Amino acid sequence: MLAETFNRHPGTWKMLTVAMCVALLGCLQAQEPQGHVSIILLGATGDLAKKYLWQGLFQLYLDEAGKGHSFSFHGAALTAPKQGQELMAKALESLSCPKDMAPSHCAEHKDQFLRLSQYRQLKTTEDYRALSKDIEAQIQHEGLREAGRIFYFSVPPFAYADIARNINSSCRPGPGAWLRVALEKPFGHDHLSAQQLATELRSFFQEEEMSRVDHYLGKQAVAQILPFRDQNRKALDSLWNRHHVERVEIVMKETVDAAGRISFYEEYGVIRDVLQNHLTEVLTLVAMELPHNVSNAEAVLRHKLQVFQALRGLQKGSAVVGQYQTYSQQVRRELQKPDSFHSLTPTFAGILVHINNLRWEGVPFILTSGKALDERVSYVRVLFKNRAFCVQSEKHWDAEQSQCLPRQIVFHIGHGDLGGPAVLVSRNLFRPSLPSESWVEMEDRPGLRLFGRPLSDYYAYSPVRERDAYSILLAHIFHCRKDSFITTENLLASWVFWTPVLDSLAHEVPRLYPGGAENGHLLDFEFSGSQLSFSQQQLEQLVPGPGSVPVPSEFQVLRAKYRESPLVSAWPEELISKLADDIEATAVRAVQHFGEFHLALSGGSSPVALFQQLAMGHYGFPWAHTHLWLVDERCVPLSDPESNFQGLQAHLLQHIRVPYYNIHPMPVHLHQRLCAEEDQGTQLYAREISALVTNSSFDLVLLGMGTDGHTASLFPQSPAGLDGEQLVVLTTSPFRPHHRMSLSLPLINRAKKVAVLVMGKMKREITLLVSRVGHEPKKWPISGVLPSSGQLVWYMDYEAFLG
Amino acid sequence: MLAETFNRHPGTWKMLTVAMCVALLGCLQAQEPQGHVSIILLGATGDLAKKYLWQGLFQLYLDEAGKGHSFSFHGAALTAPKQGQELMAKALESLSCPKDMAPSHCAEHKDQFLRLSQYRQLKTTEDYRALSKDIEAQIQHEGLREAGRIFYFSVPPFAYADIARNINSSCRPGPGAWLRVALEKPFGHDHLSAQQLATELRSFFQEEEMSRVDHYLGKQAVAQILPFRDQNRKALDSLWNRHHVERVEIVMKETVDAAGRISFYEEYGVIRDVLQNHLTEVLTLVAMELPHNVSNAEAVLRHKLQVFQALRGLQKGSAVVGQYQTYSQQVRRELQKPDSFHSLTPTFAGILVHINNLRWEGVPFILTSGKALDERVSYVRVLFKNRAFCVQSEKHWDAEQSQCLPRQIVFHIGHGDLGGPAVLVSRNLFRPSLPSESWVEMEDRPGLRLFGRPLSDYYAYSPVRERDAYSILLAHIFHCRKDSFITTENLLASWVFWTPVLDSLAHEVPRLYPGGAENGHLLDFEFSGSQLSFSQQQLEQLVPGPGSVPVPSEFQVLRAKYRESPLVSAWPEELISKLADDIEATAVRAVQHFGEFHLALSGGSSPVALFQQLAMGHYGFPWAHTHLWLVDERCVPLSDPESNFQGLQAHLLQHIRVPYYNIHPMPVHLHQRLCAEEDQGTQLYAREISALVTNSSFDLVLLGMGTDGHTASLFPQSPAGLDGEQLVVLTTSPFRPHHRMSLSLPLINRAKKVAVLVMGKMKREITLLVSRVGHEPKKWPISGVLPSSGQLVWYMDYEAFLG
Repeated sequence: MLAETFNRHPGTWKMLTVAMCVALLGCLQAQEPQGHVSIILLGATGDLAKKYLWQGLFQLYLDEAGKGHSFSFHGAALTAPKQGQELMAKALESLSCPKDMAPSHCAEHKDQFLRLSQYRQLKTTEDYRALSKDIEAQIQHEGLREAGRIFYFSVPPFAYADIARNINSSCRPGPGAWLRVALEKPFGHDHLSAQQLATELRSFFQEEEMSRVDHYLGKQAVAQILPFRDQNRKALDSLWNRHHVERVEIVMKETVDAAGRISFYEEYGVIRDVLQNHLTEVLTLVAMELPHNVSNAEAVLRHKLQVFQALRGLQKGSAVVGQYQTYSQQVRRELQKPDSFHSLTPTFAGILVHINNLRWEGVPFILTSGKALDERVSYVRVLFKNRAFCVQSEKHWDAEQSQCLPRQIVFHIGHGDLGGPAVLVSRNLFRPSLPSESWVEMEDRPGLRLFGRPLSDYYAYSPVRERDAYSILLAHIFHCRKDSFITTENLLASWVFWTPVLDSLAHEVPRLYPGGAENGHLLDFEFSGSQLSFSQQQLEQLVPGPGSVPVPSEFQVLRAKYRESPLVSAWPEELISKLADDIEATAVRAVQHFGEFHLALSGGSSPVALFQQLAMGHYGFPWAHTHLWLVDERCVPLSDPESNFQGLQAHLLQHIRVPYYNIHPMPVHLHQRLCAEEDQGTQLYAREISALVTNSSFDLVLLGMGTDGHTASLFPQSPAGLDGEQLVVLTTSPFRPHHRMSLSLPLINRAKKVAVLVMGKMKREITLLVSRVGHEPKKWPISGVLPSSGQLVWYMDYEAFLG
Repeated sequence: MLAETFNRHPGTWKMLTVAMCVALLGCLQAQEPQGHVSIILLGATGDLAKKYLWQGLFQLYLDEAGKGHSFSFHGAALTAPKQGQELMAKALESLSCPKDMAPSHCAEHKDQFLRLSQYRQLKTTEDYRALSKDIEAQIQHEGLREAGRIFYFSVPPFAYADIARNINSSCRPGPGAWLRVALEKPFGHDHLSAQQLATELRSFFQEEEMSRVDHYLGKQAVAQILPFRDQNRKALDSLWNRHHVERVEIVMKETVDAAGRISFYEEYGVIRDVLQNHLTEVLTLVAMELPHNVSNAEAVLRHKLQVFQALRGLQKGSAVVGQYQTYSQQVRRELQKPDSFHSLTPTFAGILVHINNLRWEGVPFILTSGKALDERVSYVRVLFKNRAFCVQSEKHWDAEQSQCLPRQIVFHIGHGDLGGPAVLVSRNLFRPSLPSESWVEMEDRPGLRLFGRPLSDYYAYSPVRERDAYSILLAHIFHCRKDSFITTENLLASWVFWTPVLDSLAHEVPRLYPGGAENGHLLDFEFSGSQLSFSQQQLEQLVPGPGSVPVPSEFQVLRAKYRESPLVSAWPEELISKLADDIEATAVRAVQHFGEFHLALSGGSSPVALFQQLAMGHYGFPWAHTHLWLVDERCVPLSDPESNFQGLQAHLLQHIRVPYYNIHPMPVHLHQRLCAEEDQGTQLYAREISALVTNSSFDLVLLGMGTDGHTASLFPQSPAGLDGEQLVVLTTSPFRPHHRMSLSLPLINRAKKVAVLVMGKMKREITLLVSRVGHEPKKWPISGVLPSSGQLVWYMDYEAFLG
C-alpha cells in the first residue's frame, strides 16, 4: 500500500526517504535540505573518475540543479595544480547529456558544470584546511548556507587512512551541514583486515557519514530486484520459497582476462573481486525476507543482515576454483616473478551457498564468476520447480499455458545476447508488474534464445533509459539512500562468511582452463549435498601445485589387528564409509532379531563425517526402530553449541526420522542447573538405560580416542567411571567445559559391539603409544575398553595409524 | 555376483529358480519337473484367448516340447462340443511361428500343436470329473506320469467360484503332480470385494497354486526394470533415491475410448482398470528396495510388499479425474439409461503418490492414464535432478558431457513415437548394461524427439525379439516364476491403498474433456505438497454433478462475538489460514519482546490442517525460539498412533525445525507405566512449565471443543482440573483411551491468549448450546475458559457456527 503511494507520488517518496534517513540512519545534517553542496572527487584524474564518476556527477548536476541546491565540484588528486587541471579538463571533455536533451541545451549545462568544477591538489593537511576555507569563503561570498560536503574516495585503499584523517581534522563542514564520504572497494582482504579498516574509518567518520559503494547495487536490474519483489508480492508470495524454487544462479562471466591488472588481481582473485561483494549483495536482495515497506532503508538493511545470519558456513568443499592457463605467465611478466613461479590465485570460482532458514533451506544458490570465459554476461536466474504433469504431448505445449516448460525469473544485469539490463518472467508464471515510467516491454527478437527458451516465452522488460550504475549511486549518496550501500555490519558479515573458504582455498591448486569457448565442459560443476565438484574428472594437472596430494584411489581398506582386536584402516572417506556400512549392518541385524537397535554415540568432530554419511547415504537404515543414546555430554544446556547433542542434532537428527521418544540426550540440565549431583542426572540416565536396553547392553557404542588416551568423557586419573558399579558418572575434563557426564567403562564394556574411531595426524602418537600398553585405564582410559562378551573394532584412518 | 552367474548360465538359473520356488513358495509339485502337463484354457473361444492366449500356448509348446515334458491342451468353454470345436479351430487358425523359423518347420509344429489341442465343454461337475478321468486315461495309455495341470481362467469373474469349486473337487491331478490356476483381473472392485474373492479362492486353492495375471508384468520393458536395476547397480546405487530423482512418471495414455466396453467400464473406471493394477505394479518395481538377488522370487515379492507399507495414504486431493465428453452418451446408449443420466466414472485420472521412506520421501510418483487422449503411449520415466551448473554457454552443450541437459531413464513400455518397447538412458548419465542376448542398441532415428530430447541423446535399447506379454507370462506360469504374478497379499495391499481414494472420488464430478489433441492443456495437472489440481481453472462445468458445491470464494472471513469474546468465522480453509496467520503474528511479537514463544497445542483431528498450514506456509515463523507444549495427552506411549504427540510429530514437527529441547511432550509414560499417580507426571510437567514459562502464562493456548462441551481433556463433571491449584491433572474421558493428562482450567486461564478452534457440522449443536450457557464448567468445561488477563478468540467454521 505504502509502496504504491510512493510510486504514484515520487515526491512523497523522496521526502519520506529523507525523513526516514534522518530518523533511522542519522543522516542528521540532511534536516535542512536546501543550501550549498560541495562534492570533492578524490582521484579525479583516475580511470574510474574518467569512465564513470565525472559523468555521474554531471548527471547529478543535471538532475538536481535548480531544485534549490547550489553545487561546486572539486576534482582532487596528488598531482600538482597545473598538470592536474589539464588532466581533469581532459576527463571532463567527454561528458555527455541524455539522448533526449537538445544539443544547445546540453552545451549550456556542460558549460555551467565546467565552471563549477575545479581541480585541487590535496596532499597535506594544509591543503585540506585550505579547501575547507575556500569552500566557506565561497559560500559566504555568495550569501549561501552550507548544506553539506561529499567526498568520493576513488583512490587505492592504502591512501584511505591519510585522507580520512585529513578530512576529519581539517575539512569537515561547519555545524548544521552534513558530511558524506563514499568509499570504493576493496574494503579489506579478509575479515581481520576489513575489521581493521572499518575500525580505522570509524575513528574518523560516523557510520552514517560513510557510503561504501558496491556499484552492482546501482545496476538497473539489481536495483530492480526489491521493487520487483514488492510490486509482485501477490504472485511471488507463494512462489518465493523452497517449495517452489529449484535453484538460484547468480552469475558474472567475463571474456577478458586480468592482464594489465595483475598487481591487484594476484592479491585478490575472483572471490574477493566479485563474489564477496557484487554477487553476495545480489544474493541478499534475492533471499531476504521482504520488509513490509521496501523503501524503509533501515528495514532493508536489517533484513539483508539477517540473510548473512542464516547462511550456512562455507567449506573448501563448497567451492570449485579455476585459473586460465596463461595467468601464471602474466603474473611472472607483470610482477617479475621467476619462471618457476606458479600462482594459486583463482580466476574462476563456483560456490554453492545454502541458507538455513525455512524459506530457503535446501535451495542451492549458485554463485559463479570467472575471467577468460566464453561469453560476457551477468544475471540472476531464479528457476522454479516443475510441479506439473502435462498430459498433452509436448509437441503441443505453449509458452503461456504449459506448466511443464521452464518457469524462471531472470534479472539480466548486463551484456550477453540481450546486450543490456532486462527483467524476464516466463509467461507460464505470471504477467509481472513493473514501473512503467522506467521499464518498458521489449520487442521480440526472433532467433534469440535465453536460458533454454526463445525470448517470446518471456514477459521481457528493459529500462526506458539505460543508466550507468555510478550515476544512480551518486544520486543515492546525495539523497542519503543508505540501503544502496554496504554498511559496516553488512561488510563484516560478508567477510565472516567468506573468510573461512578463502583461507581453506589458499593452498588449493585451481583447475587450469584454456580460456574462451575452448573451456568446453571443463569448468562445469555439480553439487551433492553441500559439496561442489567439477563434473569432469581432470585427466592431468598441468601444474603440480604445493597443495596437491596424490589421490589415494589405489589404496584399499586395510584389515589388521590393533591391541589384539580387529582394525580397519583406510583413507578417511573409505573409513567413514566402511564404518557407516558396518553400523547399518549391525542395526539391520539387531532390528531383525530384537525389533530395536540401541546405538550410543560420541560427540566431537570425528563423528561428524560419519553422521553425514549415515544421514545422506543409508536409505535402508532402520531409524524408526533405532534408539540413540549419548556416550558422553558436556555440562552445558542441550541447546549450547558446545553440547554433543547439538552436534548430533545438526548433523544427523535433522536429516533422518528417529521418533522423538527414541532419542535419549543425557540429562545434564535438570531444574535449571547443570550436572548438579543432587539432581541425580546420572542415576536418571542409568535408569532409563536399564529400563529400555536389555541387560544395559548397547548394540553398538561408538567411541573416540583423545590425544591423552581418554575415551568417552573418561579422562586419565578419573576418580569415577573407570571401574565400579556406576553406569553413568560425572567426570572432570582437563579441557573446557570441564564438567562432563559419561557412560562408565563397565557399562561400555557390556556392549555387544564397540567401535573406536580414530582419525587424523594428531592422533598418531597416542595411537602408537596405546598399541604398546597393557590394561591401564587409570593412565589411558581407552586401554580399559574391552567388551566382556562383545566385539571391539578399531577404525583408524591412515594418518592416525600410519602417520 | 549371483546374478551374473545366472546370466552367463541360463540353465543354472532355471534350475535355481525352480529350486527356490520349491523352497520358498511351495510350488511343491514341481520337484519332479518331467512328465505330462495338461493345460486347460477356460474361455478358449473368447477374445483374449483368440488374440493372445492360444498364441502364447503355442509359443510355450515351441519352447518346451522336446525338453522332457509332454503336453496336452484343452480348450474349454460352456459351448456345446461341436460348435465349440468349430470356434476353437477358428481361433487356432491364425497361430504364427517366430519369424526366424522355416515355414515347413512351422507347419509341422503347428500340426503337432493342433493334434494336442482339443475342445471340451466344461459346464457341470461331471464335465470336470470326466476331463480329469480322460487326462488320467491318456497318461496311463501313453505310459507317462503326470507332472501337473494348468487351468487358465479367461472367463468373467462371476464364473470364478463355480469353476474353482469344480476344479478343486473334481479335477485336481493325482498325488505328486502339481496344480496351477491362472486368474485374470478384475480381482475385485475394492478392498472388501477383493478380500471376499480371495477368501473364496483360498477355499479351493492353495496360495502357491494361484497365479494372478497382470499382463503388464509380462511387458518386456516392465519385466526389464528389476534386471536393469540389478545389472546397473553400480551406477544406480547412488542415483536411485530422493537426493537425485526429481520425479517418476508412470503413464499409460490411450487414444481409444470405452465404446463397446461400457458395461464393464462404467463399473470400473480408469483407476480400477489401469492404475490400481498395471501402474501400481510398475511403481513397486521402480520403488522397491532391490534384493541382493533379484531372481529370488520370495525376496522380490517381500520387497514389493514393503513398498505398499511405505505408501502415503491417498486422499481425494491426491487425484484429478476427467471424463471424455461423449462418455455419458455412450453409457446411455450401451446401458439404456435415460437422457438425464450423467455418469461420474472417470476415464482419465492423475494421481500423486508419495512414498514415506528414506529413499523416496518427497519424490513425486505421478501415475496417470486416460482414454481419448492425444496419443497412445505407455512408459515409466525417471527424471533426475539437475545438480549441475554448466559454465559454458548452452549453445555448446553436448549430450554426453553436459550435466545440464535432462538426465532420465525411460522404460518405454509400448506405442508412442517409438512404436514399441525400449529402454532409454540419457547419455550424460551412464552407459547401461543390458543383456545382449535379448536387448540390442537401437539405430538413431533423426527427427525423433523423446521427452524433450532427440533419440541420439540416449543410449537406447530395444528387444532383439518383441514378445507378447501373455506368451512371457504363460512361460512364467509353467516355470513357476511367482514374482511375475500378484500374490494375495500384494493384491490386498494394493486395494488397501486404492480403496479410500476410490471411495472419496465416488461422488466427484470429473472434468469433461473433448478428447484427442483438442484436450489442449485441459488435463494438465500440478501438485503442491500432496495436493493435485488441474493447472487450468475450469471456466464452466458442463454437467452439474451431484457432488458439486459452489466455491465459497465470495465469502469473507466473518468477525463477530461469541460468548462475548471475538469470533472469527469462515470456510474451513480461510479459517485455518487466518488462525495460522494469527498464531504467527503472536509468535513473532512474543519472540521480539521476550525472546521466546510458548505455545500449547491440543491434539485431535481439527488442528491437523492447522499444523500442515503452519508447517508448509509460514516461513517467517520463529520456530527456533518456540517452545511447544501439549494441552492434553492420552495415557498411551508417545509412540502410540493414538497419542496426541504422535499427531503433532507427524503433521508439524517433522516439517519444521524446533530444537529438540524446546519440545515438551506430556510425561504420561514414566518408569514404563502410563499415568501412574506415583510417578508424579503431572507435578513433573507443572514444574517444567513453572521453570520455563514466565508466570506459567503461555503465550498462546490452542483448544478445541467436544460435542459434549469438553475442552483439553477436561470432561463434564471432572473431579479435577476445573478449579483449584493444580496446573496439570489426570482425568478420565468417556471415550477410549479413558486415561488422560490435561492442563487445568486455572492454568489455561493464565494464558495471554486462548484460541478455540471448532470445526464441522457435528459441532453445530454444542456451539448453539454453549452460546447460551453461563459459566458452568462442571457441566460444560469449555464454558470455564476465560483468561483472567489474557484474550480469548473463537475460530469456528461456518458449519460449526451457522450449521
